[in-house]
Amino acid sequence: MSVDHRRLGRELDLFDSDPLIGAGLPFWLPGGAAARREIESYLYELERRAGYRHVYSPAMGRRRMYELSGHWANFADDMFPPMRVGEDELVLRPSLCPHHALIFRARGRSYRDLPLRIAELGPMFRAERSGVVGGLSRVRSMLLNDAHIFCAEDQAGAEVAGVLSLMRRAHAALGMGPVSYRLSLRGPGKKYGGDDAMWARAEALLRGALADERIRYAEARGEAAFYGPKIDIQVADPSGREWTLATVQVDYHQPRRFELEYVDANGGRQRPVMVHRSLAGSMERLFGHLIEVHEGAFPVWYAPVQLAVLPVGAGQDEAAGGFLRDALDAGLRAEAERGGSVGARVRKHRKVPYLAVIGAREAADGSVALRPRDGGRPVPMPRAEAIALIGAAASAGRDGQAGADARDRP
Amino acid sequence: MSVDHRRLGRELDLFDSDPLIGAGLPFWLPGGAAARREIESYLYELERRAGYRHVYSPAMGRRRMYELSGHWANFADDMFPPMRVGEDELVLRPSLCPHHALIFRARGRSYRDLPLRIAELGPMFRAERSGVVGGLSRVRSMLLNDAHIFCAEDQAGAEVAGVLSLMRRAHAALGMGPVSYRLSLRGPGKKYGGDDAMWARAEALLRGALADERIRYAEARGEAAFYGPKIDIQVADPSGREWTLATVQVDYHQPRRFELEYVDANGGRQRPVMVHRSLAGSMERLFGHLIEVHEGAFPVWYAPVQLAVLPVGAGQDEAAGGFLRDALDAGLRAEAERGGSVGARVRKHRKVPYLAVIGAREAADGSVALRPRDGGRPVPMPRAEAIALIGAAASAGRDGQAGADARDRP
Repeated sequence: MSVDHRRLGRELDLFDSDPLIGAGLPFWLPGGAAARREIESYLYELERRAGYRHVYSPAMGRRRMYELSGHWANFADDMFPPMRVGEDELVLRPSLCPHHALIFRARGRSYRDLPLRIAELGPMFRAERSGVVGGLSRVRSMLLNDAHIFCAEDQAGAEVAGVLSLMRRAHAALGMGPVSYRLSLRGPGKKYGGDDAMWARAEALLRGALADERIRYAEARGEAAFYGPKIDIQVADPSGREWTLATVQVDYHQPRRFELEYVDANGGRQRPVMVHRSLAGSMERLFGHLIEVHEGAFPVWYAPVQLAVLPVGAGQDEAAGGFLRDALDAGLRAEAERGGSVGARVRKHRKVPYLAVIGAREAADGSVALRPRDGGRPVPMPRAEAIALIGAAASAGRDGQAGADARDRP
Repeated sequence: MSVDHRRLGRELDLFDSDPLIGAGLPFWLPGGAAARREIESYLYELERRAGYRHVYSPAMGRRRMYELSGHWANFADDMFPPMRVGEDELVLRPSLCPHHALIFRARGRSYRDLPLRIAELGPMFRAERSGVVGGLSRVRSMLLNDAHIFCAEDQAGAEVAGVLSLMRRAHAALGMGPVSYRLSLRGPGKKYGGDDAMWARAEALLRGALADERIRYAEARGEAAFYGPKIDIQVADPSGREWTLATVQVDYHQPRRFELEYVDANGGRQRPVMVHRSLAGSMERLFGHLIEVHEGAFPVWYAPVQLAVLPVGAGQDEAAGGFLRDALDAGLRAEAERGGSVGARVRKHRKVPYLAVIGAREAADGSVALRPRDGGRPVPMPRAEAIALIGAAASAGRDGQAGADARDRP
């Protein structure tokens, strides 16, 4: 990775920022937004099929809620200052866990409902200092791929292992990597919630799941969350600094603070364990990484533009327009570029997975010369075949079959 | 409409709230969230096909931006108080227009790019007093279906008419109504931006579009936005109070304040007109209305659960499980409910569009008895036929063909 996503992301019209909006508050231009939406839909569907139930919860809560959860005592420096509205003191949320704990508590729960996997692609906020923000990897407002699994203690190990397995599938499809695993434990000189017995059980659960999934990992003292230990999936940026892109955490603390309960098979009351997890982190940090690892040449399935149609001359404009409509109707993200030399247009669209060149011959026989991004020669083929080929490549990539290729591309 | 969505929404597990999160900050339970997501996807796709380009922009901006836009002078009472983070004073946004104006300005624009239709399903905030919030119709944090069309002045009339037409399509698909149209104009005793000539031109544009679309409307003085007049699509709640569910507005003011420009065909600099529009308002207020108008029995296409599978006895559990898997694989939102009398289960799922009862005979021959919500008798049919029928009903409704039916259902 020799690329800085901040420069490339602006150059490719993926995102930008404006001093009037503020530092650490980027906006996503249509191309970046289309790619991001594709990934959001992919993650939603992956989770839905894995038994997650999605919710929407508000981006803020009362200060009292964060006092109860422990965030106020342990995390206030990273939070925005409270806002007074009428009699309420409201705080932008630094995480989604208290909201999901209260959603669990909003209905009576039985052991039959467990594991209950509550998921959300939800907004959250960090009061980063102006000096450290920039691009997408460190922002003040973000959208987090998040979930909390509420389960019986004897279900937690299998749930953590299931999360690790689901992550690997998502990371292959996205073409993420290389990543390393870190077991983040308590360390000296920091404040943590809960008692030693909780921490020991949580740590044992995580080690067991890593062993089950045959994952090698490093240990890091002092990198745990205040409420429990975690497995962090790390990636290094061009300057060698490590970022967490995904995480799975075991928490005995917040279920106790929020007095969460379910009814067991004997009618007794039990406290669930809470497994926090994010498959791919925030959309912002994830994209900062994906822009760098792919150098802006994204896999077909989430490329902002999947197909550029290039008529050689004005005589092929009509044929190009017809092919473009067919491609759009088939659900591809496609655009046509007319005028100027073909060579200049090919260079301009060098990050686009497929270019369809239409000259006099192709216009006459209803074909296109399809030129894949990875440098192969243009292949003449019927229009419908070209559209089917691109659609199939997108599907294969989304299923993780092309993740490794995409990652290795120069 | 004799139903209060606040009671019914909780009873049907669509949404709820918690005093620890705060007043006016509801969360969406899995059923409500599934229905909402379906509508969000529908609106996104409808807009995409109508030539809108979606973006993501952050939920806040610097106070200076709102001073420039005019919100600070005209709208501060409805806004959250600013938060100081480092040297910045950041404010949660009360609307998306300044962000979209700055996205327009982020790149050089030519007449060839116009009309540029920038859309977003974006978060925004209102500092409502605790006394007036409740349910979904008046909240402090919401997600708005929003867009801003940047166009040449001579394109604005056709754009407004196009928006009115697109709205009617969306409202038919959602089964919204009955709605009335209101032309909201300036009134005495309020502050407005811009000069009289701007206001006269904007008003003429709106009246022309209403005439083109043959829409009858009332006029309301004093209900304009501070930056321009608007057409509001109104609906009455059970207490007779009117709510705005959709709007289209013409704005000459903010393009001037943000110094927006494009290059015309002669190389000269021109100022675009900004058309603000929301097809269906915020997801919160929209759902408050839809729960009431449908009494919780939503059209098939966005019903939280589209199909409930009811095995008559334990002997049919396996057949029910197989049918449920087929339905889920076909993309339906389905669940099975076992145990207890069939009558009790039918009553419990009375808001679900289709019930599939499986007795000994159905289990034996691979069929189901499909019972539609609107009271028809159960119809025996092969499993695959039942799944296809429900899928077709959902598609027809999404295309607006079943909107009127759904609206009339008791």
